[in-house]
Amino acid sequence: MRKDNEQGDTVIASTMTALGRAAKRALPCLATAGSDQRNAALRECAAAIRNTATDILDANREDLERASAGTPENALLDRLTLDPERLEAIAAGQEAIAELADPLGRVLADWRRPNALHIERVSVPLGVIGMIYESRPNVTADAAGLCIKSGNAVILRGGSESFSSSSAIYACIRTGLEAAGLPPAAVQMVPTTDRAAVGYLLTSMREYIDVLIPRGGKHLIARVQQEARVPVIGHLEGICHVYLHASADAAMAREIVLNSKMRRTGICGAAETLLVDRDAADRLLPSVVGALIDAGCRVRGDETVQSLSDSVTPATVGDWSTEYLDAIISVRIVNGIEEAIEHIRHYGSDHTECIVAEDPIAAERFLSGLDSAILLHNASTQFADGGEFGMGAEIGIATGKVHARGPVGAEQLTSYKYVVRGAGQVRPR
Amino acid sequence: MRKDNEQGDTVIASTMTALGRAAKRALPCLATAGSDQRNAALRECAAAIRNTATDILDANREDLERASAGTPENALLDRLTLDPERLEAIAAGQEAIAELADPLGRVLADWRRPNALHIERVSVPLGVIGMIYESRPNVTADAAGLCIKSGNAVILRGGSESFSSSSAIYACIRTGLEAAGLPPAAVQMVPTTDRAAVGYLLTSMREYIDVLIPRGGKHLIARVQQEARVPVIGHLEGICHVYLHASADAAMAREIVLNSKMRRTGICGAAETLLVDRDAADRLLPSVVGALIDAGCRVRGDETVQSLSDSVTPATVGDWSTEYLDAIISVRIVNGIEEAIEHIRHYGSDHTECIVAEDPIAAERFLSGLDSAILLHNASTQFADGGEFGMGAEIGIATGKVHARGPVGAEQLTSYKYVVRGAGQVRPR
Repeated sequence: MRKDNEQGDTVIASTMTALGRAAKRALPCLATAGSDQRNAALRECAAAIRNTATDILDANREDLERASAGTPENALLDRLTLDPERLEAIAAGQEAIAELADPLGRVLADWRRPNALHIERVSVPLGVIGMIYESRPNVTADAAGLCIKSGNAVILRGGSESFSSSSAIYACIRTGLEAAGLPPAAVQMVPTTDRAAVGYLLTSMREYIDVLIPRGGKHLIARVQQEARVPVIGHLEGICHVYLHASADAAMAREIVLNSKMRRTGICGAAETLLVDRDAADRLLPSVVGALIDAGCRVRGDETVQSLSDSVTPATVGDWSTEYLDAIISVRIVNGIEEAIEHIRHYGSDHTECIVAEDPIAAERFLSGLDSAILLHNASTQFADGGEFGMGAEIGIATGKVHARGPVGAEQLTSYKYVVRGAGQVRPR
Repeated sequence: MRKDNEQGDTVIASTMTALGRAAKRALPCLATAGSDQRNAALRECAAAIRNTATDILDANREDLERASAGTPENALLDRLTLDPERLEAIAAGQEAIAELADPLGRVLADWRRPNALHIERVSVPLGVIGMIYESRPNVTADAAGLCIKSGNAVILRGGSESFSSSSAIYACIRTGLEAAGLPPAAVQMVPTTDRAAVGYLLTSMREYIDVLIPRGGKHLIARVQQEARVPVIGHLEGICHVYLHASADAAMAREIVLNSKMRRTGICGAAETLLVDRDAADRLLPSVVGALIDAGCRVRGDETVQSLSDSVTPATVGDWSTEYLDAIISVRIVNGIEEAIEHIRHYGSDHTECIVAEDPIAAERFLSGLDSAILLHNASTQFADGGEFGMGAEIGIATGKVHARGPVGAEQLTSYKYVVRGAGQVRPR
């Protein structure tokens, strides 16, 4: 058994090293390719997806049959399922990315020094990206497309559930790169579902990978944080809050809470906790709680909230730090905006928070006093999304402080370098 | 013995946790303080350094005596030594940082969506920074000053050699923060030289520290890369290249090579390898090599270079990937610019490279074909410096691709958040 493992480890190591080497070799060609060539590759990918739609849908059926043999959750099956409409959206996504402005070669700043040196800060690709994700096959196309657009080579490691679908989509991406005269190794997919490959990506690819982007559930993110030996742009939980200030408009409060919680409950921008000013609880809460319950949401609240409806069950301390990703909301009464800010600092995950308020001073205090990646005034937390921000697709939503925060699109997949032009200047002692 | 270690570990753990908790509590006050208040703290720090100059110089003598009891290198003693002039430069540095534009609250981008949502990307502090550095006591002041300016709390862990000097400077920083009405815990110093504290910072402070900035030798950086469990903005080696293109002006080539290598040999922006076009070797090299040898530099070269002077010794493969940080240079003949770019991609460390060329097409090819943090045309590699870039002080020079690259000043110590203003928008299905 031990020997088998060792042999398996050796196979993984040589497979992964080969991917890393090929990615690094393909990188300079992609990184210095013109915008037209990278966009041509994206359009060719879209064409290849449309041309092989039958094959992709067949592959997807294999994945669904394998998954159904277990006892999958409905949410998993929904994420996994492709149909002609979803597949057309994936193809159109590649074309939409092609339409975006070129994120490379932008002069982000430039200035001249007293000694006449001219300094430019110019955007460049990050390099080789390692992308680890779970069951959605569309992430294969989105991640590959955003990386091609931003001149980054990428090694994709998708979930085992979607292996057949992702492989079929991946074949289209290679076709697109080749058709555009770019090296297909710019985008590669780990050719095995062996979980040891994830460990190898995290710990042993420093020589080849510039940054890891994990996208998935709590367990994946925790593993990445514990094991990763290369820089990570990751997202943690989205424990998003809606705070109803005493000055909130009642109808707006109801619509924003309902949409923030219930439009989709399984996305990271869904609200998990509602905070309400004590002074406005009688005015605002009955209608909000009623609407939530009517929409099929379970409501957990403190004593004041419980007194509003028999359907409200008690919230425990654990509720304030739980990402339900389900039709459940925790509701707490606070004594004003400072207590709301304190609560969010303590229990939040720095993802997305919303204040509903007519009072502009309260709104500005909330927007400046908190430090989450996205802060909204009078708008649903479900706008936390690259498409809704106007970035085209997104590769994920980052909650860290280093590098990108919020939706990560093509522009966020770049770094910069300094280009300094002189006329023989040397530095005095 | 084992029991002692365990007790020691417990003491370190509780000491470090207390620092982390205090930093996190102090952060919101510093992060939301106005520019005037942060600048006042910096000016008060400068005043405190001048007022207690005698104490600081006494403390520095303690460090020097302790260091001299061993068998220190001269370079270490030089880095460690303070005198009234150097101390005044440290005080003036705080005032120079105060003069810089406020890096916080800048609107980095803003746009309006078709649904009338207004999105702003606004600069914010990184949070709590863990700063691990070696023997230079001035880093204590520079790092603290840049963090105060950029609204970041910081936990400083300097080298044991400079512990007394750093402690004395640190006392002035606390005085400055208090005098400006800011929480002194915004800047803290690890109160022990126990090396276990570094391990604890690297592995066990995820709850408190947002980013680690290591600044020091190879061994420190290697340890950080191996052990760190929080994001790192670090610099690797500076294996910097000067490439003399066939079109280079001979006099300019000589001055730039001499300055890039010999102005200071111990800094990361010093050149380590010289590449010369074969077509121009006869014209350029004799004068360049002669000037280097006259300046006391040892020259290691390939066969062509050796044929120029008896003083040139053979370069081995290992030389191309060595950061000498000393008066030694390796010299290689290349067959044109593509071979030079290939060499730098293979052996370089993505820090700083220079092309000397009169031909503008060659220069642009070099500047666009390479991906180091700093690329120079016709100027010395020793300009790789925050001060020379006009950033005031620098906390280090980053070679990673994620977050800051090149000199890291106050602006580079910020992240951003999105502020979204609406009028009740909810997201359609």
